[in-house]
Amino acid sequence: MQAVDEEARHADKMRKKQAARDKIMASKTQEKGLLIVHTGKGKGKTSAAMGMVVRAIGHGMRVGVVQFVKGAMTTGEKTVFDAFPDHVEFKPMGEGFTWNTQDRARDVATARAAWDEVTRMIADPAYAMVLADELNIVLRYEYLPLDEVLAVLTARPEGKHVIVTGRNAPDALIEAADLVTEMAQVKHPFRSGVKAQAGIEF
Amino acid sequence: MQAVDEEARHADKMRKKQAARDKIMASKTQEKGLLIVHTGKGKGKTSAAMGMVVRAIGHGMRVGVVQFVKGAMTTGEKTVFDAFPDHVEFKPMGEGFTWNTQDRARDVATARAAWDEVTRMIADPAYAMVLADELNIVLRYEYLPLDEVLAVLTARPEGKHVIVTGRNAPDALIEAADLVTEMAQVKHPFRSGVKAQAGIEF
Repeated sequence: MQAVDEEARHADKMRKKQAARDKIMASKTQEKGLLIVHTGKGKGKTSAAMGMVVRAIGHGMRVGVVQFVKGAMTTGEKTVFDAFPDHVEFKPMGEGFTWNTQDRARDVATARAAWDEVTRMIADPAYAMVLADELNIVLRYEYLPLDEVLAVLTARPEGKHVIVTGRNAPDALIEAADLVTEMAQVKHPFRSGVKAQAGIEF
Repeated sequence: MQAVDEEARHADKMRKKQAARDKIMASKTQEKGLLIVHTGKGKGKTSAAMGMVVRAIGHGMRVGVVQFVKGAMTTGEKTVFDAFPDHVEFKPMGEGFTWNTQDRARDVATARAAWDEVTRMIADPAYAMVLADELNIVLRYEYLPLDEVLAVLTARPEGKHVIVTGRNAPDALIEAADLVTEMAQVKHPFRSGVKAQAGIEF
């Protein structure tokens, strides 16, 4: 009898949970183009954005991907993008991390060119989603004026999703965003001498 | 002159940063199959795993994906998986959240069948990466014995990457993992009445 009671209690509890959940979901009726930010020191900021790009592709949407810092996306992503040429426009604009180029003026020019691409894709109704990968890094180094970036992001056309990734997202960007996730590092294998590996980091 | 000085200082600083970075990277020599955990209340746990699956596909690896809870991956991901039939084996084993089924015995049987698939894929050298999507949920409800799950995960063949997602990852799993990221929710649009949307949630 005890097992039967327990099963019945479980079913009852879950029935209540379902009812509560249905009620909550029924109140969510609005569709909206979201400004999404993935920040924090942990891994997964670009990967999670990629996961959203994949979903969007799967729904037949057209997605624009602009990479502000070289290396965040490499062979792995490119192969998959190439399989959906009508759905993804991939612009790897970054020249490398700023400690690679060692030339501030060149970094500023590179950031500007990448931002011009993002601005164009946001304005163009052909793109349902735009990913500005590692834009936060560029903002952190003040290679682009934050005010200008925020003005474009917040004035985006209705229904357009924009994803911004990179650690150290500015407070004003978090304030302006609809959906913000912080990827926090709990444990990282680099600490124990493991190198970057295919399928994980690139 | 001042601008020139500033540029020179920047270049010098970045040169030092590059040298320090090169030294660190040179010490990372080990390749290792990683046990990866994405947990936390924020969004992006499954999406970031998807991003890794995409990278792995792009490198020609074969990936096994087992979904413990229905709905975490839907049309969006499936369309992309279908484009790479030789590289992804997708097993949507979940029957729904436990508050949908309201039947504990059935949930336990479903979890067991899904876990059998994961066990098979971990043992089979054909798979370079295995994603156990939302396994943490099933562990949280004690539908599978944690000890058994940990034994299989920690005894995985060398070089095999396993990704486990879901909120409330057990402490012992975090302890056993090589790479753990917590997705923390900073801001979520459901709070302001926005519903789940194509390309974002599914």
